[in-house]
Amino acid sequence: MTKTIRLKIPQWQGGNNPTYSLGSELLSWLAPKNDQQKEIEVPIPVFEGPLEKENGVTAQSIVAANVDRTAEVIAEETPDKIITLGGDCLVSQAPFDYLHGKYGSDLGIIWIDAHPDISTPAIFHNEHAMVLGNLLGQGDPVLAEKVQHPFNAKSILYVGLQQPSPDEIVILDELGINYQVQTEKMISPAEVKTWLKENEFSKVVVHFDLDVLDPKEFRMLYFAEPGVEEYGAAGGKMTLAEVKEIMLAIAEQSEVVGLTVAELLPWDVQNLQKLFSDFEIFF
Amino acid sequence: MTKTIRLKIPQWQGGNNPTYSLGSELLSWLAPKNDQQKEIEVPIPVFEGPLEKENGVTAQSIVAANVDRTAEVIAEETPDKIITLGGDCLVSQAPFDYLHGKYGSDLGIIWIDAHPDISTPAIFHNEHAMVLGNLLGQGDPVLAEKVQHPFNAKSILYVGLQQPSPDEIVILDELGINYQVQTEKMISPAEVKTWLKENEFSKVVVHFDLDVLDPKEFRMLYFAEPGVEEYGAAGGKMTLAEVKEIMLAIAEQSEVVGLTVAELLPWDVQNLQKLFSDFEIFF
Repeated sequence: MTKTIRLKIPQWQGGNNPTYSLGSELLSWLAPKNDQQKEIEVPIPVFEGPLEKENGVTAQSIVAANVDRTAEVIAEETPDKIITLGGDCLVSQAPFDYLHGKYGSDLGIIWIDAHPDISTPAIFHNEHAMVLGNLLGQGDPVLAEKVQHPFNAKSILYVGLQQPSPDEIVILDELGINYQVQTEKMISPAEVKTWLKENEFSKVVVHFDLDVLDPKEFRMLYFAEPGVEEYGAAGGKMTLAEVKEIMLAIAEQSEVVGLTVAELLPWDVQNLQKLFSDFEIFF
Repeated sequence: MTKTIRLKIPQWQGGNNPTYSLGSELLSWLAPKNDQQKEIEVPIPVFEGPLEKENGVTAQSIVAANVDRTAEVIAEETPDKIITLGGDCLVSQAPFDYLHGKYGSDLGIIWIDAHPDISTPAIFHNEHAMVLGNLLGQGDPVLAEKVQHPFNAKSILYVGLQQPSPDEIVILDELGINYQVQTEKMISPAEVKTWLKENEFSKVVVHFDLDVLDPKEFRMLYFAEPGVEEYGAAGGKMTLAEVKEIMLAIAEQSEVVGLTVAELLPWDVQNLQKLFSDFEIFF
C-alpha cells in the first residue's frame, strides 16, 4: 500500500515573515481531510525578534536546522508520497531531495511559481528564493551541500513564471534551465503533458507557490497585502482555473509523488485575530 | 463565577449563501482559545439546493427553526455572557433576546454594521437584513413573534452605518431609531461612551457585522468577492483600527455581555479548498 504523509512546516525564516507560520496552520486546517494520511508537524522556532543575516543569508543556520529536522522526520517515516504544507518555499528542499533519492531519473519537477527560485546569496538574502537552486546543487552553498540527490536542470519545468530579474537570467543561463516567461501566455496543459512524456517522467513532484496566482483573484499572498501598493518583484498572473487544468493534466500523464503548497499569507485572518486580541469578552 | 459560552452558528440561510457556514467554521478556528468558554455548535441544515421563499422571505421556516434551536441551547446553558460566531447576521436574534431578558433595561445594543438591519418582507427577502427589526418586535412578523424581550428603539446605537435605502429610512423613522449616517465621519469612541453613560447602560451587547469594514482593508466580505465589481448595497468604511478603538471605549464604560461576529465570507479559503478537491494526491 502506498504511504502518503503530510508535513506541516510552519517555517517563516526563509521568507523572513512570521505570517508564513499562520499560513501553514491555515493550510493544514483547510486541506481535504484524509485519515489515511498521517500529518506530522516539523517543529520550527517561533518568532522571537528580528532575524540576523549569516553569510549574506537571513537566519541561515536556523533554516539549515529546519531542513535537517524535516529530513529526519522523512527518514523515520520512509513515505512513498509527501504533501508539504508550508511555510515559505524552502520547505520543498528536504521532501523533494528524498523523493529524488527514491525515484531517481523517473522523477521530474514542475515548479508552479511566478519566480524561478534559483537565487544565490550574491544577489539576494532570503533563502526561499534559493530553494530550487539548492536542489540543483547550486543556490546557497551551505544549504545546497545538504542535498543528497541533486536534480539536473533538464528535470525542471516552470509553470506561470514571470519575468526574472537580470541577475536571475544570468543564473538561469548558467544552470542551463530551459524556461518560458509566461506573462502573455501560460504554458498549456498539453505542453506540460508532452514535456512529461518526452522526458519519460513517470513520477513528478509539484511545487505550488501560491504567488503564481493573480493577486486580484486570490488575496492571501505577498502581493495582496492590504494597504501595500508597490512590490519589489512581479506578482503572478495565473488563475485558479488554470492551476486546476495544469494539475489535472499532470495527473493524467504521470504520478504525483510530492506536492508542496507554500507561501500562504492569510492577512485577513491575521488582522482579525489581532483585533480579537483586544476584545475583552474572549479572555 | 461568570459563565461565558460560545455559540458557533453556521447559519447561511438568512443570507442565502452557503459560504457563511465556512465563515463560521473559520471564525471558530481563528478566535482566541479559551478553555473556560464552552463552545457549542448549533446544528444548522447544510446546503442541499436552492432555498425557496415563504411569505416573501427566503427559507423563513428553516431560519425560524434555527432561532428556536439556538434559544433551546441557551436555555439549557443559562450563561451570563454569550459570544456568537456566525453565520449570517440573524444569529444575533436568540442570544440578544435572552440577554435582554436577563439584564433588562440595563442593557444597550451597539450595532456595528454598514446596514441598519431593520428591513421587512415588504422591502427585502433575506432574513439577515431584518434581525434588528425582529429584536424591536417589528421586522419579519413571523420571526419577531419569537422575541420574548423586545428592545426599545432608544436602546440602539449604530456604529459605522452607511446611507440606508429610501425604504429603510421610512422604517427607521417609523421605529423611532436615532441614527447617524457615518460615510464622511465615524461616530467617535467618546460619543459611544457618552451614549452608554447617559442611557445608564451598565451592560451592552455588541453586534459586529464584518461588512462594516472597508473591503479594501479586509477582504473576507460580501463586498470583496473576487471578480465582482458592483454590489446592490453600500460597502463599509470602517478601519480595523477604528473598530478596535470603539470596542475598547465600550469596555471602559460598560460590561460587554454579548458579542456577535457575523458575515465572514472567506472567499480565498473556499477557492483554495475547491482547487484542492481536484488534487488527486490528497485522496
